[in-house]
Formats: sequence, C-alpha cells, structure tokens
Amino acid sequence: MPQFLNTRDTDFEASFTALLGAKREDSPDVDAIVAGIIADVRARGDAALVELTAKFDRLDLAPAQLRITDADVDAAIAEVSPEERAALDLAADRIRAYHARQMPQDAQWTDEAGATLGWRWSAVSAAGLYVPGGLASYPSSVLMNAIPAKVAGVERLAVTVPTPDGQINPLVLLAARIAGVDEIYRVGGAQAVAALAYGTETIAPVDKITGPGNAFVAAAKRRVFGKVGIDMIAGPSEILVIADKDNNPDWIALDLMSQAEHDESAQSILITDDEGFGRAVAEAVEKRLETLERRAIAGVSWRDFGAVITVRDMDEAAALSNRIAPEHLELCVADPVALSEKTVHAGAIFLGQYTPEAIGDYVGGPNHVLPTARSARFSSGLSVLDFLKRTTLSQMTPDALRAIGPAAEVLAQSESLEAHGLSVTARLDALNG
Amino acid sequence: MPQFLNTRDTDFEASFTALLGAKREDSPDVDAIVAGIIADVRARGDAALVELTAKFDRLDLAPAQLRITDADVDAAIAEVSPEERAALDLAADRIRAYHARQMPQDAQWTDEAGATLGWRWSAVSAAGLYVPGGLASYPSSVLMNAIPAKVAGVERLAVTVPTPDGQINPLVLLAARIAGVDEIYRVGGAQAVAALAYGTETIAPVDKITGPGNAFVAAAKRRVFGKVGIDMIAGPSEILVIADKDNNPDWIALDLMSQAEHDESAQSILITDDEGFGRAVAEAVEKRLETLERRAIAGVSWRDFGAVITVRDMDEAAALSNRIAPEHLELCVADPVALSEKTVHAGAIFLGQYTPEAIGDYVGGPNHVLPTARSARFSSGLSVLDFLKRTTLSQMTPDALRAIGPAAEVLAQSESLEAHGLSVTARLDALNG
Repeated sequence: MPQFLNTRDTDFEASFTALLGAKREDSPDVDAIVAGIIADVRARGDAALVELTAKFDRLDLAPAQLRITDADVDAAIAEVSPEERAALDLAADRIRAYHARQMPQDAQWTDEAGATLGWRWSAVSAAGLYVPGGLASYPSSVLMNAIPAKVAGVERLAVTVPTPDGQINPLVLLAARIAGVDEIYRVGGAQAVAALAYGTETIAPVDKITGPGNAFVAAAKRRVFGKVGIDMIAGPSEILVIADKDNNPDWIALDLMSQAEHDESAQSILITDDEGFGRAVAEAVEKRLETLERRAIAGVSWRDFGAVITVRDMDEAAALSNRIAPEHLELCVADPVALSEKTVHAGAIFLGQYTPEAIGDYVGGPNHVLPTARSARFSSGLSVLDFLKRTTLSQMTPDALRAIGPAAEVLAQSESLEAHGLSVTARLDALNG
Repeated sequence: MPQFLNTRDTDFEASFTALLGAKREDSPDVDAIVAGIIADVRARGDAALVELTAKFDRLDLAPAQLRITDADVDAAIAEVSPEERAALDLAADRIRAYHARQMPQDAQWTDEAGATLGWRWSAVSAAGLYVPGGLASYPSSVLMNAIPAKVAGVERLAVTVPTPDGQINPLVLLAARIAGVDEIYRVGGAQAVAALAYGTETIAPVDKITGPGNAFVAAAKRRVFGKVGIDMIAGPSEILVIADKDNNPDWIALDLMSQAEHDESAQSILITDDEGFGRAVAEAVEKRLETLERRAIAGVSWRDFGAVITVRDMDEAAALSNRIAPEHLELCVADPVALSEKTVHAGAIFLGQYTPEAIGDYVGGPNHVLPTARSARFSSGLSVLDFLKRTTLSQMTPDALRAIGPAAEVLAQSESLEAHGLSVTARLDALNG
C-alpha cells in the first residue's frame, strides 16, 4: 500500500515535504573506476575497447568488428515482424513531425542606432547516442534521441550499444535505421562514452553525447562534460496523476503502474479531490498487482514511493503539482486545459482521460526524455535545441559606432579594462578626425 | 612574441593541433573544501554564512545584515557619475531590446489523427546570480545575467556578491537596480552558492544559479547542479580575429589585447591571408604592450597563448575557425557576411572593422556570457532560454487513441512493459466495446 495523505491533516506539510525529499536513487560511487576506463581508452584507443568489451560483455572482437555493418543490420532486422515495423514507422513519423516544429528561426534586424544585430542557429556537427544493452534496450529511446538530432541537421550520428554475449535487440537496430543513424558500434559502458568523447582509431570523436545508461555511463558522461556536450543525467521515472472522481479507477491505476513497472525507484503519485476515489484507485492497483508481469518491481515502487493525496480542490492540486514538478503529469479532470495553465512546472502534460502517459512514451510525438527529480523547475525535455547552438551576430556602421561607442568607452574605463576602451577609441578617433 | 604559424609549413598541422590542445587553465582542486562549506551551510544556515563571511571577507555581520537593503543601494549609487549612469542605462536598454526578441513562442496544433499537441514555455520561478567581488566585479556582467532572467519573466532574482572588508562596487549595485534585481546579499564564495541552492533562514532557495566566479564558486556550482540548474562553467576568454590586409594593424592589435588583458590564461589569435599584415599586427601589439595599464597580464597571455596564423585564403581561415570554435570571432574582411556563413562554430561573431569585440562586451545588445574552450561546437551564449523551460502538451480524443493507440500497444509489448500497453488497451476496450 502507498502512503495516503490529506491536505486537511495537521501533519500534511511534514508528510508532503518528506515525500518530496525521499531519496529514491542509490547511486554507487563508481567514479574512480570510470576515471580509469576513460584514461585507458584515451591512451590505447581501440585496443582498450576490445579488451573492455571482452571483459564486460564477454565478447571477443577484432577492432574491425567494433562497428556493426549495414549488412549486420540488414540481417538482424529481417527478423522483425511487420506489426512491429509498422508501429516503429508510425512512432518515427509522429516524433519527426512534432520535432520539426521545434526548429527555431534565425533573426536579423537593424536598430535605430544603425547596428545590424541577430543570431543564427546551426547544428552540432557530430553527435553520439548511448543505447543501453540487455533489458533496458528500448527502441523507443533510440527514436526519441536520434530523430531530434537528425531533424536539427546533425550530419554524423553515431550509436554505441553494448551487446552482452553478442546479443542485440533487432528492434534497436531497426529504430536506428529508421531514424537515420549513420554509424553503430557494439561497445557499451564508460568505454563507449570515452570513445565518443575522445575518439579511437575506429570511432571518430563527437561534439555531443546523449542517451540513458547505468551508473557507469552516467559517471562517464559527467566526466567528459566540457570536452563534449551532454544531455541531462536522468533519474528514476515519475508520474503525477491529478484525477477527479469521474474517472475509471482501473485506468488511473494502470497509468500509475506504467511508471512503477520501470524501476523499484520509480514514483507514482495520485492527487484527487475525492478521498473515496483515491481509495478505489489504490484498490484497483492492488488488483492489477496480482497479475502484472512486472509486479515485483511495480509493487516495491508503489509501496516505497507511491502516494495518494486528497486535496480540498483542484487549485490546491495545482499548487502541490508545482512543488513536485513532475516528469509526467496527467490531468484527468473535467477541464484539463484550464488546469494545465496552473501546473507550470512539469516535463510533459497529458490532458484528459484518453491520454494515458504511455501514449507519450511511444507514439504521441513529444519527446519521452524528460526532466526527473524535480528538475522540471528549471529544465526541459530533449528537443532539437539540444542538437543546435546559437551564434550571435553584430555589425556596426561608422554611425552606429559613433552612437554607442562612447558608452562602451565609459564602461571599459569603469571596469579598468583599458584595451577594451582603446579598441573603440582608436576607431572613433579615425572616424571623427 | 606570439607563435607564428603558416598553413604552407609542413609542420603546420602538428603546431595547430598543439595550439588547440594547449592547457590554459590550471584549476586547483578545491572540491573537498567546497563540499565541507556546502554541508556547513546546509546544516547551520545563516550562522554558517556569518562565520564564513567573517573568515573569508574579513567582515563581521549579524544575520540581519546579510541582505543589502534598498537604502544601502540608494546610498551607494548616489556616488555614481552621470556619465556612468547614462552608459549603464544605454547598455541595459540595448541588452533588453536584443533579449526581448529571443522570447520563444508557444505552439498548439491538431494533427490528422485528431491529437492536439504543442508546448508551452514558462519562466523559472526564482534565479540566483553570483557576482564576484573585488577586481572582477563587473557591472556589465550583472546586466548580462540579470536582464535575460527578467525578460524571461523570473519573478524572484537574487544576487549574491562578496564585499571583502565591506567594500562593494557602487556600479554593481546600480546595474542590479537597473536590471530589476529583487534581492542582494553580501555573501560570496561556495557559501553563497550553497545558500542559493539550499536556502538559509535569510536567503530563500532558488531554482537556477548563473554567473561567473573563481574556482570555489565553479566547484560549488558543479556540486549543486541537479538540485538547481546552473549555467555553463566559463573558462578563460578567447578571441579569434580573421583579417585581411585592408585593416589598420593597430585596431586589430587592440582587439587582440582586449581579450589578453582579461587574464594571463586568455587567448588571442589572428588569422590572415597576408603574412606581412600579420607581422604588422604583431608589431603593433608590441608597441601597445609598452604602455597598456594591464600590460603585465596581456603580455603573458599573448606570449604564452597568442598566435598569428597565415593562410592561403579565407576558406582555409573559415575551416581553421571552425576547428577553434572561438568564443568571440571578429571578421575584418571585405565581405564579412559571406565569411560568417562559413564560420558556423562560434559564440559571437563581430562583422567588419567597425565592430570591435568590446562593443559586444558592453553595449551591442547580444550577451557577453559565451561558450569558451571550444564548447561553441555544442553550446550557446546565455539567453532568455536559460531562464525558461518547456512543457510538452498532448491531448488524445477517442478517435485519436483509436488511430495511434494500437501502435503503442505493440511497442509496449516489444519492450516488455505490460502496464504501459494495458493503460492503452483498457481504454480502447471501453471505446470499442
């Protein structure tokens, strides 16, 4: 059973604060090991990759076999069923259409001083996408990471994926093919991140690395940050459902369980203005937990971190939602659009009872890589902007320099940066003399 | 004297690679000290701030004095000259006008499946701006950090600034006033970052921290990242000037020195297609170094990290520029716009001989907080986007769920996430049954 909270209870604030602060992730300290792996890959390149792959993935490769060839991909994806292929195609098309709208505009204008100003967006030249192996090897994540990169215009997109004992998920390869990935390597762990950041004989270095991974991968990404760009370090998944009593308790129970089944550290919270409805959902969860394939995982998550919170009204629900700043927020209420205007801190919002969060994981269109652990207060899900950068542009005319240059001279002097000021003065002297 | 390189030389590639890889920053390992300071502020709040301020800034304060009051600001800014005030006002107006154009648009549309999709931008609720004390306490940096936050709509913007021996730069306070800063605290170092991230009795916690600082501040920002958002960790400043022979060597020399005077670790590089012009600029630098106030600093930077590179033509210059990915790029050539279309990896581009980089530091309008150390390959200067986050929105109708739900069921099954699939199936069963 989850925690039951009620904003009318005198100890609510303490209980809610404890819920917000619950430490869900136990990150092992693997930093020293990861530092050693990165140094090894920098020093020995492919030789280190081969050795580490033999050690961690029980796979003996020659350097020439590090890359998964087009023929390898062709062979593997031949196994994929037509239904799965069609589903991936539909998902890819919808993700591509959504992200294409995110492309930002360049700008240029001339202001009253005569200065021409603006900015220009351009794509990162090369990006690397880490794809986990084994159970967490999700084709949907390949689409969600690779498509924004390609929409942004990244010319070279390399995927690394560990293949423990030589096993690989054909759907991952098909997703990479559909998304337009340019290179795939059978390497994983911190060694893959090191290879993408620093390059080896076989793998050319990239400028940006994205994608989920275990503690070793996360630690490696933190370490190479600065040398390359990285995406956020994702924590365990979370969902907050705000639902009134006019909902099917079983549907809401399944939505809560669709996060809980990811991970014992996942968190599912229901906020409702009807205590009886909250109890009904909790009962529906117990019923589903009797048969769900991943009931062991989902049950632990629900017991340790699940919560059902009863509020006085939906304004109170919105206020609590903003304090939680959830990764996923479902609004199953009569007027979800109105409520969504009050829930401003959330990674993704799913409106109405026909929009289960799982739609967003696969086929909705928006990205499923979203800010966790309350970071929706200050960050956003993955988008094409993560694969673009902006260059600002300025061009002064002699008149523009005459108009605004003197203010720069004053400020340079006040900051004791003489050469800054002189670089303006020398030009103004020539123009005015 | 700087290095002289020529792309025609047989050892050019080796020399250029060495130049690119030169380690300019010597970051002391202060991580353990910083971890202790953060733990202390988290445990003891204001009491820790008071003690650490007495120790590091030689300033005894009661907790009630941590905040710089409006009256304190009024008193301090009365000293500022009308010229300086006018210059700050002009800079603020131009920075505000430029950044107002960066505000991104929300979007919403209904696609052919009947799904309503979109996104909404919203401001970070509270931001903290670290302002260094002493020599590097630049009013221009206050404007460049604070104005984008306020343009983005940040409701609460708090500044922390150390006041060693009680000294503070009145221009910093005036810049904060002009930019609309809401709170100012006389605290610095890692303790200020800890207070902004975790809060104390006097300083409420924020969601995002930006602003430059020394090694302690940088280490503290890295440590609190995740709890709050942070901006980039800036390295020493850099400029690349691409200039043909039709330029005044002294102007280019001053532009190179305006970076070099910042820091012994700063880097100034000239690329030209005329070897004789390169020599003339180097001579002009030597002449200026005889008299510049900050000649000791600028001279070391120019000697250790400066370079004059002669290229065959401007296409070669653009290719080298993209490998350098400079923070600041000046294009002093006949057609700077055409060349700028080839120099895609740069933080800020200054076009033509009447746009010295110093204009951009103060009054141009674009931000002067820019990616250093080749990170313009994957990141951008500070902007209103750093104080906004995006929430994605999806709403399915029954028809839309019928259209795309089955693909989600297939993908959920292939990823062995049963509850994900069931959350769709339960709804489709009700709709279809």
